[in-house]
Amino acid sequence: MLGVCYYPEHWPESLWEDDARRMRAMGIVYVRIGEFAWSRLEPEPGRLELDWLRGAIDILGAAGLKVVLGTPTATPPKWLMDKHPEIAPVDPDGKRRGFGARRHYSFSSEVYRRESARIVEILACEFGAHDAVAGWQTDNEYGCHDTVLSWGEVDLQAFQNWLRARYQTPEMLNEAWGNVFWSMEVASFDDVTLPAFAVTETNPAARLDFWRFASEQVASFDLAQVAIIRAHSPGRFVTHNFMGFFHDFDHFALGEHLDFASWDSYPLGAVEGFPFSEEERVRWARTSHPDIAPFNHDLYRGVGRGRFWVMEQQPGPVNWAPWNAIPRPGQIRLFTWEAIAHGAEVVSYFRWRQAPFAQEQMHAGLNLPNDGGLSPGGREATRVGAELAELGPLPATRRAPVALVFDYEASWITRIQPQGRDFLYHELVFRWYEAARRLGLDIDILPPGADLAGYALVLVPTLPHVSEAAAAAFAKARGQVLFGPRSGSKTRQLAIPDNLPPGPLASLVPIRVIEVASLRPGLVEIVSGEVGGAVQRWRERIEATGAVEIDAHFDNAEPALVRAGRYFYLAGWPDAELLGNVLKALANRANLPIAAVSDGVRLRRRGDLTFAFNYGERVYKAPASAKDFLLGGYEVGPGEVAIWRA
Amino acid sequence: MLGVCYYPEHWPESLWEDDARRMRAMGIVYVRIGEFAWSRLEPEPGRLELDWLRGAIDILGAAGLKVVLGTPTATPPKWLMDKHPEIAPVDPDGKRRGFGARRHYSFSSEVYRRESARIVEILACEFGAHDAVAGWQTDNEYGCHDTVLSWGEVDLQAFQNWLRARYQTPEMLNEAWGNVFWSMEVASFDDVTLPAFAVTETNPAARLDFWRFASEQVASFDLAQVAIIRAHSPGRFVTHNFMGFFHDFDHFALGEHLDFASWDSYPLGAVEGFPFSEEERVRWARTSHPDIAPFNHDLYRGVGRGRFWVMEQQPGPVNWAPWNAIPRPGQIRLFTWEAIAHGAEVVSYFRWRQAPFAQEQMHAGLNLPNDGGLSPGGREATRVGAELAELGPLPATRRAPVALVFDYEASWITRIQPQGRDFLYHELVFRWYEAARRLGLDIDILPPGADLAGYALVLVPTLPHVSEAAAAAFAKARGQVLFGPRSGSKTRQLAIPDNLPPGPLASLVPIRVIEVASLRPGLVEIVSGEVGGAVQRWRERIEATGAVEIDAHFDNAEPALVRAGRYFYLAGWPDAELLGNVLKALANRANLPIAAVSDGVRLRRRGDLTFAFNYGERVYKAPASAKDFLLGGYEVGPGEVAIWRA
Amino acid sequence: MLGVCYYPEHWPESLWEDDARRMRAMGIVYVRIGEFAWSRLEPEPGRLELDWLRGAIDILGAAGLKVVLGTPTATPPKWLMDKHPEIAPVDPDGKRRGFGARRHYSFSSEVYRRESARIVEILACEFGAHDAVAGWQTDNEYGCHDTVLSWGEVDLQAFQNWLRARYQTPEMLNEAWGNVFWSMEVASFDDVTLPAFAVTETNPAARLDFWRFASEQVASFDLAQVAIIRAHSPGRFVTHNFMGFFHDFDHFALGEHLDFASWDSYPLGAVEGFPFSEEERVRWARTSHPDIAPFNHDLYRGVGRGRFWVMEQQPGPVNWAPWNAIPRPGQIRLFTWEAIAHGAEVVSYFRWRQAPFAQEQMHAGLNLPNDGGLSPGGREATRVGAELAELGPLPATRRAPVALVFDYEASWITRIQPQGRDFLYHELVFRWYEAARRLGLDIDILPPGADLAGYALVLVPTLPHVSEAAAAAFAKARGQVLFGPRSGSKTRQLAIPDNLPPGPLASLVPIRVIEVASLRPGLVEIVSGEVGGAVQRWRERIEATGAVEIDAHFDNAEPALVRAGRYFYLAGWPDAELLGNVLKALANRANLPIAAVSDGVRLRRRGDLTFAFNYGERVYKAPASAKDFLLGGYEVGPGEVAIWRA
Repeated sequence: MLGVCYYPEHWPESLWEDDARRMRAMGIVYVRIGEFAWSRLEPEPGRLELDWLRGAIDILGAAGLKVVLGTPTATPPKWLMDKHPEIAPVDPDGKRRGFGARRHYSFSSEVYRRESARIVEILACEFGAHDAVAGWQTDNEYGCHDTVLSWGEVDLQAFQNWLRARYQTPEMLNEAWGNVFWSMEVASFDDVTLPAFAVTETNPAARLDFWRFASEQVASFDLAQVAIIRAHSPGRFVTHNFMGFFHDFDHFALGEHLDFASWDSYPLGAVEGFPFSEEERVRWARTSHPDIAPFNHDLYRGVGRGRFWVMEQQPGPVNWAPWNAIPRPGQIRLFTWEAIAHGAEVVSYFRWRQAPFAQEQMHAGLNLPNDGGLSPGGREATRVGAELAELGPLPATRRAPVALVFDYEASWITRIQPQGRDFLYHELVFRWYEAARRLGLDIDILPPGADLAGYALVLVPTLPHVSEAAAAAFAKARGQVLFGPRSGSKTRQLAIPDNLPPGPLASLVPIRVIEVASLRPGLVEIVSGEVGGAVQRWRERIEATGAVEIDAHFDNAEPALVRAGRYFYLAGWPDAELLGNVLKALANRANLPIAAVSDGVRLRRRGDLTFAFNYGERVYKAPASAKDFLLGGYEVGPGEVAIWRA
Repeated sequence: MLGVCYYPEHWPESLWEDDARRMRAMGIVYVRIGEFAWSRLEPEPGRLELDWLRGAIDILGAAGLKVVLGTPTATPPKWLMDKHPEIAPVDPDGKRRGFGARRHYSFSSEVYRRESARIVEILACEFGAHDAVAGWQTDNEYGCHDTVLSWGEVDLQAFQNWLRARYQTPEMLNEAWGNVFWSMEVASFDDVTLPAFAVTETNPAARLDFWRFASEQVASFDLAQVAIIRAHSPGRFVTHNFMGFFHDFDHFALGEHLDFASWDSYPLGAVEGFPFSEEERVRWARTSHPDIAPFNHDLYRGVGRGRFWVMEQQPGPVNWAPWNAIPRPGQIRLFTWEAIAHGAEVVSYFRWRQAPFAQEQMHAGLNLPNDGGLSPGGREATRVGAELAELGPLPATRRAPVALVFDYEASWITRIQPQGRDFLYHELVFRWYEAARRLGLDIDILPPGADLAGYALVLVPTLPHVSEAAAAAFAKARGQVLFGPRSGSKTRQLAIPDNLPPGPLASLVPIRVIEVASLRPGLVEIVSGEVGGAVQRWRERIEATGAVEIDAHFDNAEPALVRAGRYFYLAGWPDAELLGNVLKALANRANLPIAAVSDGVRLRRRGDLTFAFNYGERVYKAPASAKDFLLGGYEVGPGEVAIWRA
Repeated sequence: MLGVCYYPEHWPESLWEDDARRMRAMGIVYVRIGEFAWSRLEPEPGRLELDWLRGAIDILGAAGLKVVLGTPTATPPKWLMDKHPEIAPVDPDGKRRGFGARRHYSFSSEVYRRESARIVEILACEFGAHDAVAGWQTDNEYGCHDTVLSWGEVDLQAFQNWLRARYQTPEMLNEAWGNVFWSMEVASFDDVTLPAFAVTETNPAARLDFWRFASEQVASFDLAQVAIIRAHSPGRFVTHNFMGFFHDFDHFALGEHLDFASWDSYPLGAVEGFPFSEEERVRWARTSHPDIAPFNHDLYRGVGRGRFWVMEQQPGPVNWAPWNAIPRPGQIRLFTWEAIAHGAEVVSYFRWRQAPFAQEQMHAGLNLPNDGGLSPGGREATRVGAELAELGPLPATRRAPVALVFDYEASWITRIQPQGRDFLYHELVFRWYEAARRLGLDIDILPPGADLAGYALVLVPTLPHVSEAAAAAFAKARGQVLFGPRSGSKTRQLAIPDNLPPGPLASLVPIRVIEVASLRPGLVEIVSGEVGGAVQRWRERIEATGAVEIDAHFDNAEPALVRAGRYFYLAGWPDAELLGNVLKALANRANLPIAAVSDGVRLRRRGDLTFAFNYGERVYKAPASAKDFLLGGYEVGPGEVAIWRA
């Protein structure tokens, strides 16, 4: 189904009815509104103006649209910031980040938590039972603009309390963090400082705990809103719109208390932000890389425990990347179908009409600014609306054959202690995902500790800290399991395990890592054996501590890929060749059918349907086995989509 | 005529007389002094020591030299800063920028405006009627070291007052800025904050108004000094020494109340600061690019309403660029003649003698430090002095056939909202200027709204906000008019116009822009038709809304260059090939004679004289029509100058 | 002899005895301990816990080991920082650099000087006469993490006092600094501000004095500790562990009051920090560049007036470089032997056992973390221990034939006023050193003013300020003396000398420099004559003021290398070819035997022994004259060491 983001407060009331009618006409079902409107809902402390919003909801409902109501807490109004300046977050240089944009609050401000609860309760009481209100979105893009971590006084106090609860005594804290090092010991929890403002690098264990704390603050902030909504708006769903490739807090933790996950998909803008080569950036500038949106679809399907929406879908050029291309013709339609292929229940465009003013005026909408009519993207969305109507209900999404274990803590740990400047967790995971998708495989992305028993192939690009739950899930896996470098290399307190890395994984793959090298650009180490290629960026020296097979080795004969039964350990960051070869070998061992595709084409199944998406510049020919084309045909041109049964 | 900048306070009094004599001997007429001497003029609050300055003026006057007296307000002394610390400007991180260098004041400090008036009045009363004083320079290089915008408490208060006067009510401000977006609404003008210190990008309309405000503060600060000088120093001129390629405030606004403009020409240093390619930087390291000084000559002739000086002319290597080359032999002479060719009334070298101490000790002078005698640059200046004396009076500068519309607001708007990282206004304008000069054309640079009726060709590289005055001037133009991309794309309040871009220009070229792409490095779009080439960096999708000719199109057949009568609109940032072809086509249409020159040679007319300047490495042959060589001959070698009648 | 750094406080007491036994068994003699243990020695103000340390010393002593006791002042404990927050240093942005890592103190804090004296006196009284204590290390790596310069209130006050003592009156200060420039004059010493927080560049003379002041603060801080130790720990040596390539304070000044110098050698990590090309960084990633450790050995032998240790020797991969390679097999052994070849009395590895926790957990030790046994580096150290035992005492180090004059002030001056972005003093000096070593020459590195009479060849890569002592030493030199560019270009107060550069050196080489160019990347100037090549980065125009030979000239015939008797002046930054040719010519003139080696091989003599070290990838063949191999043989493979008599 289609949706759209709408800002009635930006437009004269006289336009609302016609807007609603046109939305409905193009097949839109859901309309998200309200998430930045606090200054209009409460222009002065306590003076509420809710009528306009009720009017908008009424009009949308009357047109047959369902409303997703956003809580407006991403934009506390000026009067609130003036009354309580301590709400504002503080950057790692100690500078207050005040009013003037959005997200100007710290998750640890008790004052703000009270205000957040107050405004959410007002809205939930007022609109929670409105017929047209189908569900809620909490806040907006938690963490956007680096706002998960805040470095102010309220953050320090909340962190000290969090540590007090977790460690009981300062002695236990000193022990856990290794504070004896550099005389960092504290005599009380009040002595703890934020891991910043120091002469050089602060204690990595403190930084990891601060990150965990901050992540939990996001979850508890969100949960407080959710609880209020559930109390006053029965039968409505609650979700949050996450961002792509954003790993500053643990999304799985929020997923547990939301009805489903949703995320904001800006595939073109993401190309500039991702650590691609310049060559890749040029190549994918107008289409995006064919795994950017899919990776996040699969991740958020996992976060949403099987259910997700795209809450904001890029409808044309955006305003916030260093360069902002016009999408290639067909691309908006392709993105929409692709989300559906990966199981999205709703794809909601951001935004209905381009705003002619303020920060996002260069961000396209389905409609041109003012009275300009449909934008090129709006015309593509209209086409998808018609196609969706014609196709009717689609089959359910099934479990994929491949599981990829994704861990937010792994991102924090490798950022806290990269050891090599380019050991980038999000890139590592993405490259493993890409390599598996190049083999035509469908993938589920799961948190550590999730049940892996049903997967033929389990990929763990890296997992520095292996919790007991994660270790147990690996032990219960029935498929082939591949661990990447640095897996098991850290304890929960970011220390080296007693038995050396891979710590608890040594019971599955009996090895130990005695030395690691981060390899600067220009250095590679050749790998040969049953699979060949090279490692770059990272290389480990491992010793067997039990019975293992050496499936591949470095030039100096040291092991590169070792195996114990169905468990594999890869002692470096594989280049594309090695990675492709290793995954192919494991897929074969797992009896998974491989359907290798060129770098511009991707396949995805949903129920008995196969979808093909062509991001490339050459025609893709569907396999001869394809039949019953629901969309497109055997020849899938650049920018085209095909759906068939197979 | 020649001039020089001199610092009597840096040297023993015993040297002054000989210095004056030697200046006169080498043909120098004007001597600028005094502009940093506040601590010597007023060593303690209220204790004035003006005798030394009178002595210096007397000696210079006695030698037949004319004095340009600088007001010393660029360097408030220590005691003043201690008494009023709030004078200091504040950077966008909120950090005070204190004493220890220069320009340590905010234009919005009322205290400093009082002090500025006080010291200027003292000097104007004391020296305003001195026979040797020919004129005044206000302050020094307004805005140098990023000092136009200041982010402190006094700035905020002045800005709030400015907004109050302009918008009357907070509601009108909210409406004008689109503050409904992200709940940025204010309830009173006291609520307005500086557009900084926020979590992310602040409102672009607020930023543009803040920039306008700051620019007006510079103008009113300057005007206050000018008024005092005019009151006490009748018959003397007042000017200010602007910087090249510096666009942080509107120079045209100051030009209106000055007698003429002057600027500080450092062609070699500018090569490193301009966004040239590395290849160009190497190529022009020792000569400068042949349009750097000319562009600014032509701009400041416009700022000075036909009159300008070079107040500071680079005489050798400088100290402030990342690398500081020795100019190629002949280059100092070439720069001097070139300024004269473009209409400079005086070329004044900075400085008489290299200072052996303090920040600028590695900056060359006409003389070596201490008793070292003439520097290489000093010897070239001596030669020019002799040549000038021999040639006698030169004909007056005439109106050029080509007008280039230059707009300071365009620089601010595209910096506030670049949309593509390399959409650099100063580079765009420079490349258009360069392309026209490669065709041998002379150019006047004018502000939007200036009378264009007398020009055969009008170039508007871009003009995002087209004021009513500007629109009227375009309508009255009689020549060919070429608008570049983004022209007419914004309202005065930095919003998208109701009728979409090009807004008011649609009445001249009936089109609308429905989508824009900023093109990352590596992306180009081919253009063909009556002119060919490519666009890079920026590309627009335009639709005709009335009768237009499509003179060139993109590969997908969408229009690239459209024309309605004598008005052209170019839908992208042209590469050198396309730009050259478009300008040649328009020049032909305008019946302008083209005299294409190689990239190292430039021509310029003054009255019936033609000047040729050879920045290149090969001999340039003057046209056969050249006759009556005043300087040089048919063969103009590298570094050489020729002047002939033609 | 070998040593090791040990942290008993990091390990259970139960391990100490076995650790001591194993150290002794592998040939270790010295154990450095205690230098970060303040929070364990004094957990609360005044509550001392010294027993554990005595226990550790006892155990080490009982095993036959000698203890080097570190004063713990690099890590003031939390309670001290809370009591006296003004101890913390302040960065050049005015931000306090607080607790949480190490070196969080300003050398100008009187409070901290008292506390430092107090804790050092406690330790010296307690352990100064302990039999096992052989000597002391003051603090740890002074200046690490940019802590020499601090920009706070206590620093300002101390600086004002320092200026008061040095300049007597504000008038003399104004005169010395050229404060008349830009009205920077002060009326009293209280008016002086730190040379920071200003709108643009502050006065270079002020910056140089501030740097000298800060450097002297380090020396006096250190001297205070040394005096206490000498009072209470008779017969023990005192040293400090300096860092490689760290020039923020004058190490020679400390060397004067220490018994010998020691330094911390991390050859691989240094590759990333040094301004090598990317190609060189890849090439030397696993071995280090073959002059990195030797340069510092020779420098610290000079700082220690002939005596030095390596206090911390890299034993494997480290944690702090952008990328951290595993050393090539054999490299740890090579580094150890190389230090000995250059005269190191002790090579002490950092650290005994890798810590599994806190900031340095990814830093290798001689032992793997926890109970992991010897690391690869530990196994190489064991081999060296055995080899050393077998060889017995080595001959004494003799004076080298070549002196290189190294000046810390030269580093400050060229950083304060680079004039060209890549005029990097440490690189210039290193390249001269490298070029001489490529000719097989041994080098002593000496401060300006040191006696040069015994050297056949004296290299002065640059010496901007030539003190009277330095000038006198040059005059008394008996060998060939080569001055590099910018030598003699500044007075003590960072002004241009009255007679122009090279100032006082003009009496040795009668020239003057009339103009200088810094050459951007891509610009070179060809040099030919008796020696050929090119200059890059820097080029001077010089004029003879007396009788000189022009041994080489630029393309425009201006002098490039001039000579007056045995004194040479080189008017630019030589490329490798020119530098090699010049040094070869001078070595020939000095009758020094040349033994050119490939870029991966280096030779070094100690007494009658010659050492060869192979950093390269091809076998090196020792000269036929080599005999009596003590280690290795004629064929010295990659990573190998050979020692012979010759």
